[in-house]
Amino acid sequence: MEKVAIVQKMPEKVSLIHGAGGEMMQSLIGGVFATIKNNNAGGIGLEALDDGAAIPFGDKFIVLTTDNHVIKPIFFPGGDIGRLSISGTVNDLAMMGAKPIALTNGVVLPEGFPIEDLQKIVKSVDEALEEAGCALVTGDTKVLPREALDSIIINTSGIGITDNPIRDCGLKPGNKIIVTGTIGDHGIAIIAHREGFKFGSELKSDVAPIWKTVEAALAVGGITAMKDPTRGGVANVLNEMAKKSGVRIVIQEETLPFRQDVRAAADMLGLDPMEVANEGKAVIGVEADKADAVLEAVRKTKYGKDAVIIGSVEEGSGVIMKTRIGGQRFIEPPLGDPVPRVC
Amino acid sequence: MEKVAIVQKMPEKVSLIHGAGGEMMQSLIGGVFATIKNNNAGGIGLEALDDGAAIPFGDKFIVLTTDNHVIKPIFFPGGDIGRLSISGTVNDLAMMGAKPIALTNGVVLPEGFPIEDLQKIVKSVDEALEEAGCALVTGDTKVLPREALDSIIINTSGIGITDNPIRDCGLKPGNKIIVTGTIGDHGIAIIAHREGFKFGSELKSDVAPIWKTVEAALAVGGITAMKDPTRGGVANVLNEMAKKSGVRIVIQEETLPFRQDVRAAADMLGLDPMEVANEGKAVIGVEADKADAVLEAVRKTKYGKDAVIIGSVEEGSGVIMKTRIGGQRFIEPPLGDPVPRVC
Ligand SMILES: Nc1ncnc2c1ncn2[C@@H]1O[C@H](COP(=O)(O)OP(=O)(O)OP(=O)(O)O)[C@@H](O)[C@H]1O
Ligand SMILES: Nc1ncnc2c1ncn2[C@@H]1O[C@H](COP(=O)(O)OP(=O)(O)OP(=O)(O)O)[C@@H](O)[C@H]1O
Ligand SMILES: [Mg+2]
Ligand SMILES: [Mg+2]
Ligand SMILES: [Mg+2]
Ligand SMILES: [Mg+2]
Ligand SMILES: [Mg+2]
Ligand SMILES: [Mg+2]
Repeated sequence: MEKVAIVQKMPEKVSLIHGAGGEMMQSLIGGVFATIKNNNAGGIGLEALDDGAAIPFGDKFIVLTTDNHVIKPIFFPGGDIGRLSISGTVNDLAMMGAKPIALTNGVVLPEGFPIEDLQKIVKSVDEALEEAGCALVTGDTKVLPREALDSIIINTSGIGITDNPIRDCGLKPGNKIIVTGTIGDHGIAIIAHREGFKFGSELKSDVAPIWKTVEAALAVGGITAMKDPTRGGVANVLNEMAKKSGVRIVIQEETLPFRQDVRAAADMLGLDPMEVANEGKAVIGVEADKADAVLEAVRKTKYGKDAVIIGSVEEGSGVIMKTRIGGQRFIEPPLGDPVPRVC
Repeated sequence: MEKVAIVQKMPEKVSLIHGAGGEMMQSLIGGVFATIKNNNAGGIGLEALDDGAAIPFGDKFIVLTTDNHVIKPIFFPGGDIGRLSISGTVNDLAMMGAKPIALTNGVVLPEGFPIEDLQKIVKSVDEALEEAGCALVTGDTKVLPREALDSIIINTSGIGITDNPIRDCGLKPGNKIIVTGTIGDHGIAIIAHREGFKFGSELKSDVAPIWKTVEAALAVGGITAMKDPTRGGVANVLNEMAKKSGVRIVIQEETLPFRQDVRAAADMLGLDPMEVANEGKAVIGVEADKADAVLEAVRKTKYGKDAVIIGSVEEGSGVIMKTRIGGQRFIEPPLGDPVPRVC
């Protein structure tokens, strides 16, 4: 199967799913961008396709990461594109085990964009920076004609520092898998809001910079792998982590933490909350004897209260879910996140 | 005059000129983005509004910079958006005195974008990396619906290392001003190509990563300030450097290096080549007694052959041009670059 995917001819044109964070995006990145030969500055480079790169510097590593944010709408329940852009980049640094230090702000605006909206976005950028304990130190501003671009795009790149980068490929049989909170909140909140659905309680994005939650986990030790379940959701990152680590992940359905209203909305929308983006969560692999201590440390933090152990790592391949009723089934990686423009 | 600009009310909506690199853009950045309080990670931060930020790390500085590239057309005489994106970021690192180390590749694509074009762009990205001696280590890919975006946008952020950051505000009376080559090539080539103008020789962009030229200058010593004359051109950066340094710059018209065909095309188009973007040039301030040695060193490099001393620094303010016929006039900073989507 995999061989077929690799020899598969590239399509002639880019389609929406090439930007949706699943297997189709991975094939575009692998087939086009990952062909770049100047791909490593020492340490962990583009070849690793991890949450960021890590460059040795003295006895430490500088982690570098980048994300474009094209979410629609730009103001949504629980946050806005400003909070999202800082959180997304802080979280990718955190996933590499790095304390976030300095971020960039690459803004592309359509002509006619309201300055008031820009000011609101900048305010929430500043609040998220404050929360994450890092700074925005440089930026760029371009403006395109109205007919060339429909809404603001923000690229946020960033650097962080670590003694020891955490990979997404370090899972070992016997490890436990922790998820730091409820699954699917961001993706389901965005699509429900966009479709104008009304539910009992208002669904909210979980968008948050979670460095402090991750820092608490790292302080305990025993962390073997981390990844933030953004586009493609938990289903996608579990598959990526299992594949890159050369292991099987087995999760227990009854442990999976979902908000009641997220599950209800997902059902109505015909979506699987495991396949949609989270913007304030981490999936963490941890040595078995440290798992309870990491869980406890994470739960003491603001964004880790609902953390649970959802499964463990075995020899083999793929991601298997043991269902509530005693069966088991593969959790497949999505071809792409079902929610367009989710981040 | 300046006071008026500062108390000026922000307009209600963003207009094209807010992205055009001159005084209007500076007022948007100053009034909106520069209000961010979490703006400094130690060293030189957002408050400096320099080509990048510089963060102390051990006994060195990490320089961080970012640029979005929205140029139209994406393939143009002398280069393409791939070469431009690497060069732009390498050059901002170089302007801070930093050796470029690692870059990011944040790509936003419109649905339907030809994969073949993407492959061409990636190839020229790789060639520019090779030339600059650095690596592309991480990226991001988003795809927008056809009606939401007209063409590819690339954000390139990057880090570099220096013992000693060079500011844009370090000019001192007595310094000489060097420009590393001919002025206005990029902007005039883009607009001429776009308008379908034909000239005797084909006008070509100067787009190039000029770290090696800058490295040669730094090796001589005595560099007090640097800036790359991108949007808004040499007229804009001379004014910014003079203002930020609290000095006057006096340049000699007859020393200004223009390609014959650039000057002819600019005349026909009614544009001032001093106000349009260059993408492979630096304006360098240097102590007088080192100026000849720096010039000689720069001229030995691939992208510095046409370097000249164009003037010197005095006490006072503003930028003055001594004309060929013995007069003198202020060179005003442009409100914005006259060429839209030039980079
Ligand atoms: N245009 C690109 N050029 C180079 N590398 C890329 C590009 N797009 C993505 N990558 C690399 O592919 C990998 C996966 O990227 P992806 O954007 O999915 O990661 P992420 O930022 O962790 O997820 P998300 O963007 O959903 O937050 C990363 O290692 C990234 O550096
Ligand atoms: N959206 C933004 N947010 C924060 N800072 C910004 C933003 N846009 C620009 N800046 C800052 O304003 C200053 C001027 O930016 P500008 O983009 O003109 O610099 P440059 O990259 O050297 O020029 P060019 O983009 O033409 O190559 C820089 O210090 C930059 O960090
Ligand atoms: Mg990630
Ligand atoms: Mg990310
Ligand atoms: Mg810029
Ligand atoms: Mg610059
Ligand atoms: Mg620049
Ligand atoms: Mg990404």
